[in-house]
Amino acid sequence: MTISSLLKERVRYAPYLSKVARAEDLLPLFKNGQYIGWSGFTGVGAPKAIPQALANHVEANKLQSQLQFNLFVGASAGPEESRWAELDMIARRAPHQVGKPIARAINEGRIQFFDKHLSMFPQDLTYGFYTRNRTDGKILDYSIIEATAIKEDGSIVPGPSVGGSPEFVSVSDKVIIEVNTATPSFEGLHDIDMPENPPYRNPYPYTSVDHKCGVDSIPVDPERVVAIVESTTRDLVPPNTPSDDMSRAIGRHLVEFFENEVRHGRLPENLHPLQSGIGNIANAVIEGLSGASFKNLTVWTEVLQDSFLDLFENGSLDYATATSIRLTESGFERFFDNWDNFSKKLCLRSQVVSNNPEMIRRLGVIAMNTPVEVDIYAHANSTNVSGSRMLNGLGGSADFLRNAKLSIMHTPAARPTKTDPTGISTIVPMASHVDQTEHDLDVVVTDQGLADLRGLSPRERAREIIKNCAHPDYEPILLDYLERSEHYARKNRCLHEPHMLQNAHKFHLNLAEKGTMKVDSWD
Amino acid sequence: MTISSLLKERVRYAPYLSKVARAEDLLPLFKNGQYIGWSGFTGVGAPKAIPQALANHVEANKLQSQLQFNLFVGASAGPEESRWAELDMIARRAPHQVGKPIARAINEGRIQFFDKHLSMFPQDLTYGFYTRNRTDGKILDYSIIEATAIKEDGSIVPGPSVGGSPEFVSVSDKVIIEVNTATPSFEGLHDIDMPENPPYRNPYPYTSVDHKCGVDSIPVDPERVVAIVESTTRDLVPPNTPSDDMSRAIGRHLVEFFENEVRHGRLPENLHPLQSGIGNIANAVIEGLSGASFKNLTVWTEVLQDSFLDLFENGSLDYATATSIRLTESGFERFFDNWDNFSKKLCLRSQVVSNNPEMIRRLGVIAMNTPVEVDIYAHANSTNVSGSRMLNGLGGSADFLRNAKLSIMHTPAARPTKTDPTGISTIVPMASHVDQTEHDLDVVVTDQGLADLRGLSPRERAREIIKNCAHPDYEPILLDYLERSEHYARKNRCLHEPHMLQNAHKFHLNLAEKGTMKVDSWD
Repeated sequence: MTISSLLKERVRYAPYLSKVARAEDLLPLFKNGQYIGWSGFTGVGAPKAIPQALANHVEANKLQSQLQFNLFVGASAGPEESRWAELDMIARRAPHQVGKPIARAINEGRIQFFDKHLSMFPQDLTYGFYTRNRTDGKILDYSIIEATAIKEDGSIVPGPSVGGSPEFVSVSDKVIIEVNTATPSFEGLHDIDMPENPPYRNPYPYTSVDHKCGVDSIPVDPERVVAIVESTTRDLVPPNTPSDDMSRAIGRHLVEFFENEVRHGRLPENLHPLQSGIGNIANAVIEGLSGASFKNLTVWTEVLQDSFLDLFENGSLDYATATSIRLTESGFERFFDNWDNFSKKLCLRSQVVSNNPEMIRRLGVIAMNTPVEVDIYAHANSTNVSGSRMLNGLGGSADFLRNAKLSIMHTPAARPTKTDPTGISTIVPMASHVDQTEHDLDVVVTDQGLADLRGLSPRERAREIIKNCAHPDYEPILLDYLERSEHYARKNRCLHEPHMLQNAHKFHLNLAEKGTMKVDSWD
Repeated sequence: MTISSLLKERVRYAPYLSKVARAEDLLPLFKNGQYIGWSGFTGVGAPKAIPQALANHVEANKLQSQLQFNLFVGASAGPEESRWAELDMIARRAPHQVGKPIARAINEGRIQFFDKHLSMFPQDLTYGFYTRNRTDGKILDYSIIEATAIKEDGSIVPGPSVGGSPEFVSVSDKVIIEVNTATPSFEGLHDIDMPENPPYRNPYPYTSVDHKCGVDSIPVDPERVVAIVESTTRDLVPPNTPSDDMSRAIGRHLVEFFENEVRHGRLPENLHPLQSGIGNIANAVIEGLSGASFKNLTVWTEVLQDSFLDLFENGSLDYATATSIRLTESGFERFFDNWDNFSKKLCLRSQVVSNNPEMIRRLGVIAMNTPVEVDIYAHANSTNVSGSRMLNGLGGSADFLRNAKLSIMHTPAARPTKTDPTGISTIVPMASHVDQTEHDLDVVVTDQGLADLRGLSPRERAREIIKNCAHPDYEPILLDYLERSEHYARKNRCLHEPHMLQNAHKFHLNLAEKGTMKVDSWD
């Protein structure tokens, strides 16, 4: 077949050129029940051409729920994955997903989903833990990996994310590479550690965010590469939610907290490396830091967004490392227009390294994430609404919050329901699902204020959280829950972390029945 | 004062001899509200003479709740701490305790207790997190550290535990050393890393359990050592609970599981380094391993018990490292009688290192711990009975279970109440307190059987746990809970992890009301 000049330019290992194929030609390779790994993380760097071709094939031939895969992606892939979910092409999925059709399929029981710490998922996959029931001893049948270039040794230069690709490739029977010629090459931006397993595992040598010791592409045995496909679709990241009064208030509380920590010598003037999630609160916090007097900041995180480009440009940020750079279209344009500048200040690693407890603890990272809800004793729910309904998964939240020097959760104090503008309190008596424990969190902050929980007993924590963080509509209700629980616990000598178990989830039950968490009676 | 020849022999730094004092002489140093650090971990290696003298002083002068301390111990201390609790001498305590009087004081609200991951507690203390409300900028007023020898440079040779002593000493205004002359010197058994804080923290270089790179004593500025006290009381560890049918059944299930993992190449023939807790199940598992065909085992754990001596002696165990060696009197005799042999195969580290995620993950540790309860989706409660009543604290369970290659919780399927021999099911619909999340556990095992949860979705996990692990008395009740929850969740499209929140804690409420968890109706 004809090979475009763009593709020839990107593929510097000549033997691969004989393996160039159209996505449609590869359909016969895929069989029901296979185990497939995709590159991609937070919606960027995932394969596009083959997933799309397979979806078209299923749709055209009415193969819904007859051609299903066990699908593993470092974190979320792009819109192609949503199509797979709509067409019932996913039997099993881990460890993190984004997209309404996927969540719907999980919550309707059509996809068996499990979420695992993003730092652990790829290693556990290579151990054969998730494929232990296969009789053929294989782990993955195929990995489909997006590249932006192929080096002279046949190794893969990823695009805007590394994710779990190094591990997927290492345990795949066969590998298919989608070379994306619509995106500029990201060559030089990656620092990749290939998996080592116990008992032969060495320390990660990194002692600062800008320390690079890995290789700049993913090695692969060319014999196992069965096809090269040109992909001509760019990643499409939706525009960022702008900051608002609520998120800016959170940003202000946090900046004030950091300034106080610096004053007392518990943080250096340039803080410690920052980890920050996705969303409008994360953006407002980064904006807040950008407007404050902090200089020479560094970032050790899992995903970089547009707001970090501002931090670079105003001179506050010295270096940032992540496993994914999830920029909007205009963000990518800014990035490539200033490639020489940005590429010296930025590096992408595998998710096993970006999220590794070893590095997060060593560097003393400051971790900031948004929960579904936090309870009065500082357990947090990051995954399941009202205990049962899956949103996106755990992601790297627990990797960072368990190991950071400062573990911070930020959230609006209340959220609206259809009938009540403050119908959902994010501060609840007992979290309906626990992903982060009371032993993990140092600080909870809402638009109402900040609770510093370090060194406090559970009952002290409860009062700080209720007083400083709860929405005024819920403050008296939560205090009432606490005091009634204490009354009961005093009699029963269980005053460490008092609860009324019969009412522990009454906020959620009230919400389901009446559209608001405003409980008017405990009886 | 007269200095015993035994003491002179142990104290090889002459200037300290002028600081020798009787415990009673030091009473005036201690003031209400001070922050004190003690050596000690799992009941061994804690100071004895001064705590006893202070308790006598409080008792004799009726100073109960007038002379109170903020007390920090690596993990639990000895019986002296129970006396402090009885005499209301503890205002605040972290991070882990053992002793009925202490738990009683916590559950009556007289001690403000917080538990924190044992790997993190000492570092967070050195950051000043727990003393941030002090106006004088100090962290600890005094550390009281038990030594079994003092080296020529004035440094401290600990006894049977290292725990948090290196960190306590590093942030103490003043240090008091109790030299225990009733216990042989442990010199040569320790490998100690002194704290390094971010941003200057280096990798721990250890790549095998027997790798030693630290110093063999705790450095201390002699100027800050205000007194040396001779202590003549040995550690007293109660006899171990022998294994029984229940715990041996768990041991058998686990050995079978390990053998299968080796057969499938997911574990090497000598397994990976083992971590094992305290108690009869832990002992039965070690016995089971000892009786199986595993050779050249290694141990990376937080506490060693007598059962490990058997493993050494029958040739199964090559090397063991921990932060505490908690032996019974006869165990210590065996240990010292074979010092030359055992001391080559064993090393004690600080708890920051023994419990560090970096090491646990690098080595691929196999972690085994006993919970209070596990729920059908594999969340586990390690700390609070019925959600509120503190037992001992989190300990290192979450350090190990979060980071191990294989994370295992073992528990009897049921426990007796006064009226029902199987009144308590350790498998419950929803854990009443969550310390280990569903994202952490790989295997749950009871005397009934073993559930391998790797790669399963929550509903698949629930069926495995109910079928394999639940006591037959509870199997139908739990299955009924699951099916009713699924019915409800199917209608409400929240089928990822179905719960009936109004009944999620009904097992516990039934127990409180009727003395059994056997729920007979969900209405």
